Amino acid sequence: MPDRVAVIGAAGYGGAVAAAILHRHPSLELSVVTARSDAGRRHDELYPRYRVPLTLEEFDADEIAQRASSALVAYPHGAAAPAVKALRERGLKVVDLSADFRLDRERYERWYQAHAAPELLDEAVYGLTEAHRDEIREAKLVAAPGCYATAALLAVWPVRDHITDVVVDGKSGVSGAGREATPATHFVSVTENVQAYKVEGHRHAAELEQELHGASFTFVPHLVPVEQGLLASCYATTDLDAQAVLDRYRDAYSDEPFIDLVDEPPGTDDVRETNRCRIQVSVVGERVVALAAIDNLWKGAAGQAVQDLNLMLGLPETEGLE
Amino acid sequence: MPDRVAVIGAAGYGGAVAAAILHRHPSLELSVVTARSDAGRRHDELYPRYRVPLTLEEFDADEIAQRASSALVAYPHGAAAPAVKALRERGLKVVDLSADFRLDRERYERWYQAHAAPELLDEAVYGLTEAHRDEIREAKLVAAPGCYATAALLAVWPVRDHITDVVVDGKSGVSGAGREATPATHFVSVTENVQAYKVEGHRHAAELEQELHGASFTFVPHLVPVEQGLLASCYATTDLDAQAVLDRYRDAYSDEPFIDLVDEPPGTDDVRETNRCRIQVSVVGERVVALAAIDNLWKGAAGQAVQDLNLMLGLPETEGLE
Amino acid sequence: MPDRVAVIGAAGYGGAVAAAILHRHPSLELSVVTARSDAGRRHDELYPRYRVPLTLEEFDADEIAQRASSALVAYPHGAAAPAVKALRERGLKVVDLSADFRLDRERYERWYQAHAAPELLDEAVYGLTEAHRDEIREAKLVAAPGCYATAALLAVWPVRDHITDVVVDGKSGVSGAGREATPATHFVSVTENVQAYKVEGHRHAAELEQELHGASFTFVPHLVPVEQGLLASCYATTDLDAQAVLDRYRDAYSDEPFIDLVDEPPGTDDVRETNRCRIQVSVVGERVVALAAIDNLWKGAAGQAVQDLNLMLGLPETEGLE
Amino acid sequence: MPDRVAVIGAAGYGGAVAAAILHRHPSLELSVVTARSDAGRRHDELYPRYRVPLTLEEFDADEIAQRASSALVAYPHGAAAPAVKALRERGLKVVDLSADFRLDRERYERWYQAHAAPELLDEAVYGLTEAHRDEIREAKLVAAPGCYATAALLAVWPVRDHITDVVVDGKSGVSGAGREATPATHFVSVTENVQAYKVEGHRHAAELEQELHGASFTFVPHLVPVEQGLLASCYATTDLDAQAVLDRYRDAYSDEPFIDLVDEPPGTDDVRETNRCRIQVSVVGERVVALAAIDNLWKGAAGQAVQDLNLMLGLPETEGLE
Repeated sequence: MPDRVAVIGAAGYGGAVAAAILHRHPSLELSVVTARSDAGRRHDELYPRYRVPLTLEEFDADEIAQRASSALVAYPHGAAAPAVKALRERGLKVVDLSADFRLDRERYERWYQAHAAPELLDEAVYGLTEAHRDEIREAKLVAAPGCYATAALLAVWPVRDHITDVVVDGKSGVSGAGREATPATHFVSVTENVQAYKVEGHRHAAELEQELHGASFTFVPHLVPVEQGLLASCYATTDLDAQAVLDRYRDAYSDEPFIDLVDEPPGTDDVRETNRCRIQVSVVGERVVALAAIDNLWKGAAGQAVQDLNLMLGLPETEGLE
Repeated sequence: MPDRVAVIGAAGYGGAVAAAILHRHPSLELSVVTARSDAGRRHDELYPRYRVPLTLEEFDADEIAQRASSALVAYPHGAAAPAVKALRERGLKVVDLSADFRLDRERYERWYQAHAAPELLDEAVYGLTEAHRDEIREAKLVAAPGCYATAALLAVWPVRDHITDVVVDGKSGVSGAGREATPATHFVSVTENVQAYKVEGHRHAAELEQELHGASFTFVPHLVPVEQGLLASCYATTDLDAQAVLDRYRDAYSDEPFIDLVDEPPGTDDVRETNRCRIQVSVVGERVVALAAIDNLWKGAAGQAVQDLNLMLGLPETEGLE
Repeated sequence: MPDRVAVIGAAGYGGAVAAAILHRHPSLELSVVTARSDAGRRHDELYPRYRVPLTLEEFDADEIAQRASSALVAYPHGAAAPAVKALRERGLKVVDLSADFRLDRERYERWYQAHAAPELLDEAVYGLTEAHRDEIREAKLVAAPGCYATAALLAVWPVRDHITDVVVDGKSGVSGAGREATPATHFVSVTENVQAYKVEGHRHAAELEQELHGASFTFVPHLVPVEQGLLASCYATTDLDAQAVLDRYRDAYSDEPFIDLVDEPPGTDDVRETNRCRIQVSVVGERVVALAAIDNLWKGAAGQAVQDLNLMLGLPETEGLE
Repeated sequence: MPDRVAVIGAAGYGGAVAAAILHRHPSLELSVVTARSDAGRRHDELYPRYRVPLTLEEFDADEIAQRASSALVAYPHGAAAPAVKALRERGLKVVDLSADFRLDRERYERWYQAHAAPELLDEAVYGLTEAHRDEIREAKLVAAPGCYATAALLAVWPVRDHITDVVVDGKSGVSGAGREATPATHFVSVTENVQAYKVEGHRHAAELEQELHGASFTFVPHLVPVEQGLLASCYATTDLDAQAVLDRYRDAYSDEPFIDLVDEPPGTDDVRETNRCRIQVSVVGERVVALAAIDNLWKGAAGQAVQDLNLMLGLPETEGLE
């Protein structure tokens, strides 16, 4: 009998994709989907093309524990921690897609708010699969990285210990801003527009800071008129020569199932609705230019979360994701 | 009687906007429009919304010299130089929108090809209005800067002599690639896609190199699914403290008629179909983050060309552009 | 001294364009702009590219009557009637962009709600300029038609008395849905989507019904991923032969300043940010196929409202609109 | 051993999707992909996200007959017939995606050109699966319907014998125009534009005419700024009462695996990258309003072709398509 999985918060964009992936997963059974404000509606009414024929339920940890042994939690930060805690207390393995378990407590409380379940931070593993695969295999709680952090970290990971300085110019599609209707997500605001935001400090920078431990970096996110897709353009200075840089990328990534090292600039459309990260690295003068394209809802959220879950459950890492 | 102006190459996107601006210009008369492959068609058949009721003609320098005393040339590089030469020989003042007169000969021939009219390079003035206003007033031949160079240079001009290093991440709408139908401009290639190009070296870098004389820089252009608009996100290190940086921007730009120093990140939609450049400068940690948004066809091409022409003809700089 | 005009509700899309047009109008002075929820903010902060340097004020009819002799009211239906009433009581000439004064009372109350100022309905003139020009000249209160009604009625007006039946398939850009952020206007909902709405009955049908007095028609509106633009594709059967149809269009429209009868299918991009209506009429088998493209915010709202106002004030009809 | 299938013309949009579907098909093996101008390149270089790791080959019928027992031909009309003929002569079962085998000879030669393989027309079955399922099962050559015809015919099929007259207003995404770069497919031409084309007669009308045998209809196609998706808005008059209409749709479609009868207007985004056709039918006054949304590259081309092939090979109709 396949492991049964719940998706908590399956009405948002990330949770909806998680449900779509799990519903077709050959070794897992999507047994419960919940939603905060759309409970009672069918998932395939909200997202017809994903064709998940389940009804969204209210969150009830006891009920979920009866019907699933693991869960993906796709709540906003702050709301996630209590849900994760309730599920962990009932023994479920959890992948959380919010920021709540990505950061150490000090960083979290500096960028976000008081933590609602700090006692779980010790067991949480940062779920950048390519970087922390072994720990993820053993984990009971994995924090799936943010979309910007996923692309930027994968872009520079092979040389992270040699970076003296890096500029990360991130460009994200609108689904990254979530399903809430706001002035910023109105079609008229987005179309024909390219615009930076949170120049003085974006929360995703906290992940970069933590994972790059100490390298100086500047991160500026931009919104582009795209539905799904994220490109991190990274400009790094390192203490390596050009050949050493290229060698490190080849060594790090040639066996990675979801990373494509390519010779041309990767486009977000190349990876749309896939769990892949497509990376081009060049050394241009003194700088390493590393470009990483992902689908923000797949490798940047739900896809990577399933990749993590596969590892946690002892399944082949790529199952359900190809 | 108003000065009469010809637009050479008015069927391309930049030339078409030039014709539209000049047709409504209160002190100039658009007397001739030419096109290489669309001669015989009406301009308002190709571009109905610009409402320029003129027929596109073949290029004939003698004929044009009879009917105009100045010209905007909007040919591709290489094709522009001979046309400019023919018009200059007949005494017309010329603003050229191509790369042919932007660079010194060595740089031009390194990035492009043998120059077809090198004897004119001495009299050509680089038409970044805010940087070279006085020379433009006296010029007979002005080379309007490229769109990326316009945004990037305006973004860093106030601190250009203090830059030790700058990363320029450019994002351009598709009209910047010209009217030619290519695989890269096909709607299906562009939509839902964000992609860098020419990472190893874009010709517009030559302008940056020349105008920043010597500052180390990295420039990577990106194509975004936008029709008109260009954002240059510039990340500079300087030898100035934060207050000095901000002071220099305020001093340089507070009286500039087409530059808006703003407190929020500028969006390309804020300047669409205007000649304005909207700039936000922040000092984030060690770095100056300068974001400049323009319409690539206006301030990045035809608008700035008219701004230059106004100066060359002794007209108020802003005429016809507001 | 120019007539002074107020725009009531200048923070919405239609009102914002009205303010932009009037601010540049050569014979009128935009003296007051108001907004319901954005009062206190500058118009050019909300809409930088329109460059209207005025601060949005609270609505105060006495104050407005001091500072303007006419007004464009761009409130939602229901909210408009009381504002119009207050302004009319103080003697201002008014063009209302809402539905509140477009319909006779019975129709209005059937499709909308109880009317808040029914005593004004008698003096209100339906502001489809090409159809009711003489009445508009004399009017004190004009109701600018809805965007769908404008395009559909102009498409069939020359043969309206000969129509036995007409299908109107309307396609509108998202600005037609207003500035409110809703699930339906979220970029992710709109992009890559084409969808009908209100198949069983759209309020704009009431205008068609009233103005076509009695012709049988079917009207279905569709939302398309476009910011500004509306195409009405009309399929009519008439009792006229083909030549008579074409003659009527030519007779009706050859002298109209804002209507272009064209030989190719009109695109919404041909008329973007213009007050023009571009119409192609063909007779295909038994049917008249009449296609009309407008900018929903210009000829479909603010542009036509200014066209009406020009007439009401004795100005040339096209002033400020070219 | 699974049946082996070739895709002829796998570099175009339709053929590329066909290859993507077949590569993942559980009971078929994609053994050959060919291309006319991209032979020698890898399919996943042209279409990274489809992840088909095969090299495009030149067309060689003998070679293909060695390595495949059936083929999908995705050539343009005119080019398809000779390729189909060569494959049929070698015994392969063929689904052709072009117009070459959709029409009787008289219709074909009226709308297109002299037919290159008229002797095959007798064996060709029109592949609208829901309409001709039994014939398709027995067929050796199936002509997959055009995208507009698929949506329009499915929209009205249940009442086709009762239609006195129908208006079909079609709206298609740009991938329907093919991969060739033309002025009409340039991003700048498409974005912010909605436009009809071929008002006087589109070739797809020939399919409607043939399949609706005799019902009077008007068909006007429109291009909308969408990558993949097609909506047919059909306005029919019939001799049935409203209940009879609704009953016929329910009877015809309630067991169809790929048709969803829905209560809300179908959006093209609801069916993107699926083989589904989503239909809403309403009776509004005297008219049946039937709206059908498909993905033009799936149900409108490659998806339906695989659906046909499944039937021809005795496989479950839905295999590889869910």
